[in-house]
Amino acid sequence: MPAITGDDYIDRIDELKNNVWIDGKQVTGKISEHPAFKGVIKSQAALYDLQYDEMTKDVMTYLSPLTGKQVGISYLQPKTQGDLVKRRAMVQQWARSNNGMMGRSPDYMNTVLMAFASSAKLLEGKENCFPENITKFYEYARENDLSMTHTFIDPQVNRTQFYFEDSEEPIAAKVVDRTEKGIVVKGARLLATQGGITDEILAFSAGGVVDKANGFAFSIPSNSEGLRFVCRESFVGGDSVFNYPLSSRFEEMDTIVVFDNVLVPWDRVFYYDNMEVSNSFMGASSFQPFTLHQAVSRQIIKTEFVLGVVQSIIDTINISEYQHVQEKVSEIIVALETMKALVMKSEVDAQIDEWGFMRPDRTTLQIAINTFPRVYPRFTEIIQLLGASGLMSIPTEDAFKSRVRADLDQYLQSKSRNAEDRVRIFRLAWDLTMSSFGTRETLYERYFFGDPVKLASQLYFSYDKREYVKRVEDFLAVKKV
Amino acid sequence: MPAITGDDYIDRIDELKNNVWIDGKQVTGKISEHPAFKGVIKSQAALYDLQYDEMTKDVMTYLSPLTGKQVGISYLQPKTQGDLVKRRAMVQQWARSNNGMMGRSPDYMNTVLMAFASSAKLLEGKENCFPENITKFYEYARENDLSMTHTFIDPQVNRTQFYFEDSEEPIAAKVVDRTEKGIVVKGARLLATQGGITDEILAFSAGGVVDKANGFAFSIPSNSEGLRFVCRESFVGGDSVFNYPLSSRFEEMDTIVVFDNVLVPWDRVFYYDNMEVSNSFMGASSFQPFTLHQAVSRQIIKTEFVLGVVQSIIDTINISEYQHVQEKVSEIIVALETMKALVMKSEVDAQIDEWGFMRPDRTTLQIAINTFPRVYPRFTEIIQLLGASGLMSIPTEDAFKSRVRADLDQYLQSKSRNAEDRVRIFRLAWDLTMSSFGTRETLYERYFFGDPVKLASQLYFSYDKREYVKRVEDFLAVKKV
Amino acid sequence: MPAITGDDYIDRIDELKNNVWIDGKQVTGKISEHPAFKGVIKSQAALYDLQYDEMTKDVMTYLSPLTGKQVGISYLQPKTQGDLVKRRAMVQQWARSNNGMMGRSPDYMNTVLMAFASSAKLLEGKENCFPENITKFYEYARENDLSMTHTFIDPQVNRTQFYFEDSEEPIAAKVVDRTEKGIVVKGARLLATQGGITDEILAFSAGGVVDKANGFAFSIPSNSEGLRFVCRESFVGGDSVFNYPLSSRFEEMDTIVVFDNVLVPWDRVFYYDNMEVSNSFMGASSFQPFTLHQAVSRQIIKTEFVLGVVQSIIDTINISEYQHVQEKVSEIIVALETMKALVMKSEVDAQIDEWGFMRPDRTTLQIAINTFPRVYPRFTEIIQLLGASGLMSIPTEDAFKSRVRADLDQYLQSKSRNAEDRVRIFRLAWDLTMSSFGTRETLYERYFFGDPVKLASQLYFSYDKREYVKRVEDFLAVKKV
Amino acid sequence: MPAITGDDYIDRIDELKNNVWIDGKQVTGKISEHPAFKGVIKSQAALYDLQYDEMTKDVMTYLSPLTGKQVGISYLQPKTQGDLVKRRAMVQQWARSNNGMMGRSPDYMNTVLMAFASSAKLLEGKENCFPENITKFYEYARENDLSMTHTFIDPQVNRTQFYFEDSEEPIAAKVVDRTEKGIVVKGARLLATQGGITDEILAFSAGGVVDKANGFAFSIPSNSEGLRFVCRESFVGGDSVFNYPLSSRFEEMDTIVVFDNVLVPWDRVFYYDNMEVSNSFMGASSFQPFTLHQAVSRQIIKTEFVLGVVQSIIDTINISEYQHVQEKVSEIIVALETMKALVMKSEVDAQIDEWGFMRPDRTTLQIAINTFPRVYPRFTEIIQLLGASGLMSIPTEDAFKSRVRADLDQYLQSKSRNAEDRVRIFRLAWDLTMSSFGTRETLYERYFFGDPVKLASQLYFSYDKREYVKRVEDFLAVKKV
Repeated sequence: MPAITGDDYIDRIDELKNNVWIDGKQVTGKISEHPAFKGVIKSQAALYDLQYDEMTKDVMTYLSPLTGKQVGISYLQPKTQGDLVKRRAMVQQWARSNNGMMGRSPDYMNTVLMAFASSAKLLEGKENCFPENITKFYEYARENDLSMTHTFIDPQVNRTQFYFEDSEEPIAAKVVDRTEKGIVVKGARLLATQGGITDEILAFSAGGVVDKANGFAFSIPSNSEGLRFVCRESFVGGDSVFNYPLSSRFEEMDTIVVFDNVLVPWDRVFYYDNMEVSNSFMGASSFQPFTLHQAVSRQIIKTEFVLGVVQSIIDTINISEYQHVQEKVSEIIVALETMKALVMKSEVDAQIDEWGFMRPDRTTLQIAINTFPRVYPRFTEIIQLLGASGLMSIPTEDAFKSRVRADLDQYLQSKSRNAEDRVRIFRLAWDLTMSSFGTRETLYERYFFGDPVKLASQLYFSYDKREYVKRVEDFLAVKKV
Repeated sequence: MPAITGDDYIDRIDELKNNVWIDGKQVTGKISEHPAFKGVIKSQAALYDLQYDEMTKDVMTYLSPLTGKQVGISYLQPKTQGDLVKRRAMVQQWARSNNGMMGRSPDYMNTVLMAFASSAKLLEGKENCFPENITKFYEYARENDLSMTHTFIDPQVNRTQFYFEDSEEPIAAKVVDRTEKGIVVKGARLLATQGGITDEILAFSAGGVVDKANGFAFSIPSNSEGLRFVCRESFVGGDSVFNYPLSSRFEEMDTIVVFDNVLVPWDRVFYYDNMEVSNSFMGASSFQPFTLHQAVSRQIIKTEFVLGVVQSIIDTINISEYQHVQEKVSEIIVALETMKALVMKSEVDAQIDEWGFMRPDRTTLQIAINTFPRVYPRFTEIIQLLGASGLMSIPTEDAFKSRVRADLDQYLQSKSRNAEDRVRIFRLAWDLTMSSFGTRETLYERYFFGDPVKLASQLYFSYDKREYVKRVEDFLAVKKV
Repeated sequence: MPAITGDDYIDRIDELKNNVWIDGKQVTGKISEHPAFKGVIKSQAALYDLQYDEMTKDVMTYLSPLTGKQVGISYLQPKTQGDLVKRRAMVQQWARSNNGMMGRSPDYMNTVLMAFASSAKLLEGKENCFPENITKFYEYARENDLSMTHTFIDPQVNRTQFYFEDSEEPIAAKVVDRTEKGIVVKGARLLATQGGITDEILAFSAGGVVDKANGFAFSIPSNSEGLRFVCRESFVGGDSVFNYPLSSRFEEMDTIVVFDNVLVPWDRVFYYDNMEVSNSFMGASSFQPFTLHQAVSRQIIKTEFVLGVVQSIIDTINISEYQHVQEKVSEIIVALETMKALVMKSEVDAQIDEWGFMRPDRTTLQIAINTFPRVYPRFTEIIQLLGASGLMSIPTEDAFKSRVRADLDQYLQSKSRNAEDRVRIFRLAWDLTMSSFGTRETLYERYFFGDPVKLASQLYFSYDKREYVKRVEDFLAVKKV
Repeated sequence: MPAITGDDYIDRIDELKNNVWIDGKQVTGKISEHPAFKGVIKSQAALYDLQYDEMTKDVMTYLSPLTGKQVGISYLQPKTQGDLVKRRAMVQQWARSNNGMMGRSPDYMNTVLMAFASSAKLLEGKENCFPENITKFYEYARENDLSMTHTFIDPQVNRTQFYFEDSEEPIAAKVVDRTEKGIVVKGARLLATQGGITDEILAFSAGGVVDKANGFAFSIPSNSEGLRFVCRESFVGGDSVFNYPLSSRFEEMDTIVVFDNVLVPWDRVFYYDNMEVSNSFMGASSFQPFTLHQAVSRQIIKTEFVLGVVQSIIDTINISEYQHVQEKVSEIIVALETMKALVMKSEVDAQIDEWGFMRPDRTTLQIAINTFPRVYPRFTEIIQLLGASGLMSIPTEDAFKSRVRADLDQYLQSKSRNAEDRVRIFRLAWDLTMSSFGTRETLYERYFFGDPVKLASQLYFSYDKREYVKRVEDFLAVKKV
């Protein structure tokens, strides 16, 4: 089965019967009907349906080089700048369907896997590395339109610079055994978003490996024996889309992934027991350029939505005449157009890599990822500063169905909206920035590509400043001793 | 009955049977047992109990000049700097009991009323003004330890600078009739915090009155005929103090107050139908210095709590070695000590006003209120920047009671805390900054004394800069044309 | 004479004998030898020489459509995106020659005039408008490679919003008479940069005209009868390029332009006495897109230079290991790459305007101009924060030639530079950010395209937000009343 | 001779014939007549004269406990809070005379020495320590009203964290020999402000000593054999107080201090060759509380002056109606009142130390010193943002004396000032923030008490956060493992 529909996705997830724990209870029955998951599963299904929608299917899919059938464009290994533009169009089409709220819509993981596959040759001839497994799994995923999550952060036990775990039982997941069938993994990993509602989970190392047992990459089905997903509290506010326009639909859940002596079959192992590869693969592969290209494309749509919300508030209570209001909105516009310019430049400056794939310009995307985590929280602040008391006057759907409706209609009316519509807009603004869902979105964007302090350091070290230093040296006729 | 106990408070509120609407349903039965109110009512009752606690009663009460019985110190009309220090000690004692989370603990409103009473003479001899009613009501409230809320903001219909309401039916509450018995009020007011769980509601004008029917001041019992409190959604996360250490206890609720032809008896009318008084009383009275002194005292305790939370996070995951972490904490320390210095200076620079009361220095307190709304949101940002993924790994109390507890114990342990304590700390940090309760606290502090942009303008205009301009003119020997 | 050489420029300026006043003295003799002007005139001459340098002449010039001779590319009316790229290459070639320090290198004014010429048709058929004069003057300037300055700001008498000048004698320059020969202008204009060292001065209105006598556009020779340039203090530190590497070369001077009943001949009048045109021409013409494209291209080179200086400081005193240093540099990198992305996007999104010229995308360039005035001052702050005491230990060239040289050599040596080179670098950093020249550069960039507060408002109003508001309305199914 | 007059000071400095190098030339003749020094020497002399001015002498002096004669209050060892208030009054009296521009007016160094003397007992019984020499020198300085400078920073060769100097010849000043007469010092120290125009120079260690030869404390006459002061470029703009109202009077000069085998007589050695003391004395002594109390008192006066300048600009060009202008000024007011509150709290919370002296509260003053370096640069930014083009239209005194005066009078007039006064105000604003003098002032305040990043870290580590952590632990009932 190539590109799937929403129903395909739902059926498959329900059948997996993944081991998911939430609020002290194991999920039983169809997970697609569980209050914490049904909204996001439905929204995810709607994405898959767009692959068969006559209006959008050409934007969403291409013909598999293997089978000639329609497969998702997020799997496309780009070879031209045009391919990058196509990829962006697809990502933004999906993002518009959830206003950029789903950081882990399937295109993200498809891109991760595509990047791995496009860099598999890096592993050739290296000890305990199986590039062919990556390639095969990539093709399998593409042709079956698998949904996936991933995990690459160790538990946050001790974040001192030179921490070395020395507990008897593993905390951070590690390879504890290898058998004829595969490697055996024990321990935990943080934070698989959508953990438990995807077909597969991809586990790999993001560098910083000091014990080679902690270094590995593989993918296994979410219902593998011994695999458990422990959820945080659900941030779904409730079923009402009036009350919770976002959390009722887009709450993706984050999970701790417990590997309780999980067997990873050999044909799913990408590498293990190789410290050098564990620490270098992510950086040397096209992981960063491709996933950043996807992420930034989505963040643009999200920023557009924020701008729409902000302007809706302004119109509703008629505050556009204030200079400080204009200035605050202009901050968002500047950020939006900056992100658009960066993604465009990453495409224009893209180059063919050593394996023939068109990589978007990494430096340019690094700029975006050093920018967005700083501006997005400011957006939420702006919404609070403009919404003010309006964000505290938010009665619920049932209030509008009750006897006090007349009061609400009269006293919550506004310049350009009736009371109900005004409350809808302010509830949306609240769900975007002040509900548990909204603040988790903010935290997610703050940390999307890691600690902002470290991202800045990485940019400092990776950016080539020599030409500019030389220009200064030439101007002054000085030289180093 | 002088200073009351917690039970007195609860019984009285339950008996009132105020007309309170939440989520489309009218509260029936005891409001002190309603899920949305029971936590905060219990916390408020605990405050009253401190008035009879042997350890604290001397800090909490003084002898009524009228009856010689113990009454709350927040009612004390200060005549010396020592009285101000006593008032601060009382306020901070109560604040420590809720970590400054209850912005409307009764001392706030007691202070408001005390300030009105201390400025009542301003109204003497003015048309439609009844200063004696203020004095009488103040004494009645003090001797009966009434709980109160207030309301002075008009509905947010249209915030353009020159908006003039012209709807047929009143939106902003106004006097629509006067009868032998009193004045009749119709329309709504925003946002009475604790609306519905206090004995009385004080309504007055905060300036900006353009139609004199909108200008008035009075207090009426919360269960007055025609008075309705329409609640926003409740931000109580649930009963579990493990899960919701703050919202389960301190969620004060905000309400829209509907006056449906409410009769205000003449002996409760402070002023009405007097445009000049409606626009000047708040500014000319000691309202600002006294309430700011209370508010800043509370905010100091809240900031101490934030600092405790931040340092607890740092210890838990062992990140104190990072310079940027040190810098972030130092921002909080700077803010805390600045607030302490300002409240101290407001007391040292306090002066006896024309009616013999010791007013804390208003300018100094204006500085505090121009500072806190800018730093408090930064505190919440710092918590998110330091807590990072830890704020997404927050399983619930029931998870710790379930079969996955062993997983949690192993994988959520940290440098200096076991898993359960670590989760308690991070859930507290989350409830403080990321839950619906926490973000409402942030919004509350942002806007505690009004729009920050306007507060800055007010400071600019009220601050006396002449001496410094003169110094420049003397230095340059220039003069104005 | 088409594209000129440096000597041509110098000879022509010297011959003009413009009426220039500095420090209470009129410039007599060759202005190219005057201490306040010789450095910048020489640097400007060097720019013209690049038009004949074999290495650069193809980047610098194109063949005149009129004469087939080489003329400067900054005069090129672009018809393709390729033309825009060519224009940028030319601008950046010149900018590299002065590290972006000359905000008014001739390409800026050439661009202004080219934009006017490309929009001349806007004036067709309008009262008191002479589009053909613009076209003729543009061709004349191009074919003679005229140097120019401009002036469009009224004296800063009273910046209240509704100021209307009512002095007897004009303050802001206005048309006081019209004769057979032309219009007569009296009053002053601020701030002609390079005033007095250019062939011509272009005067026009930038909107905000409330008295139609203040509205006009024309160009006249700098030595016109009655025209005076009154200079501010010179910021040339001295002749030594060791001591003043920037101000000795690039100090462009700002002048108040006094029109003392200056006759503007009819064939040089572009428009006058037409309020509507005076207030709309600048906005409707291609002035903004073309000049911003030039300015942003230059600012990129300047930012590269700043980055080179910062990195040189870091290398010199070996501070790259500090995270806060890395973070500060990364701010500059982010700004630099953002500016590059914006100028690229302005070219990619360029469109043919109604008169057949390829306009860079104005919105994108507005983003740049809302960004640079905020980041450039931060660059100078970063330099001060990193240079620290090194910026106070800056002995002069003569100190290195004296007996204390041995002391300097020993005590000012650094990790990677000998003492003399270290001092050169720190003196450059100082001249860039802390000398009178450097701070004027900062002020210049802050205000390059006007008051940043107004620029933000303009962006707010001109940016089309409707699609995003509609997306919100569709998502919520709400509509305006 | 007790408290001196200005003439006493000048005569003494002229007689010393210190070895001062500036711009490659040694100062010969009277230094009080040298263009780079005459202004500041005159301003300093004016300070001393205030000690004999009938209006101010009681604020300036007290009776010496040794001789009963009038000596400067900055020498007073405070024993009561009243003494601290007196000290502040004296400091602010002097500061008003130079608008806080002289960071090293003699009260600063007098305070340093007083602090050392008040902590001399710390050195008792320690190896190579001579507390009696401190006491004697303190008394000698007080009774003779010596002027002093100090130096405690090593040359900025390599600022990596673990730098250890290994050059053959010393770079950082160190003890290279000890003889019967004293210790011999060779090498250099940065940055003695007022170096060469004071009677004495005090050299000591501020911690971070890794080679004990670099650790010492002593005071020697400025004209000691082998001692050289190498100046940076002078930032005196010229003699005209119209043109350079600040730099012509208050440019204090910074010097590199070269010790060319300088003999320090034993009776002037405070300690040497004692690593522990070299690294701990500054921190354990009352140096920080007393000098910060002086510094913050001065910074308050400087801030008042800045506020006066800002308001003068606003009045001049009539921009007070703009909300962003109001907001910017309010930032300055907030900073000013915050500084005032902090210095007051440092006095109210002062405590008697182990040797009987009243120490202002150090933590409170640390807050001030973590605040001012961040706000002062913002003040200069605000001045630039409000002054705008007015800061570029600054003709000189001679221009007003020339034929163009009529132009200036007409075209530079403003709402509330004639042209000349307006230019005076803008030139002052420029000299305060944009001249080489002004930017050096900014750098000076940025780094007055060291690297702001390190100051924040110190605050983090020294501040007692335990009570607040405990409050959190009690609230949650958690404890450390």
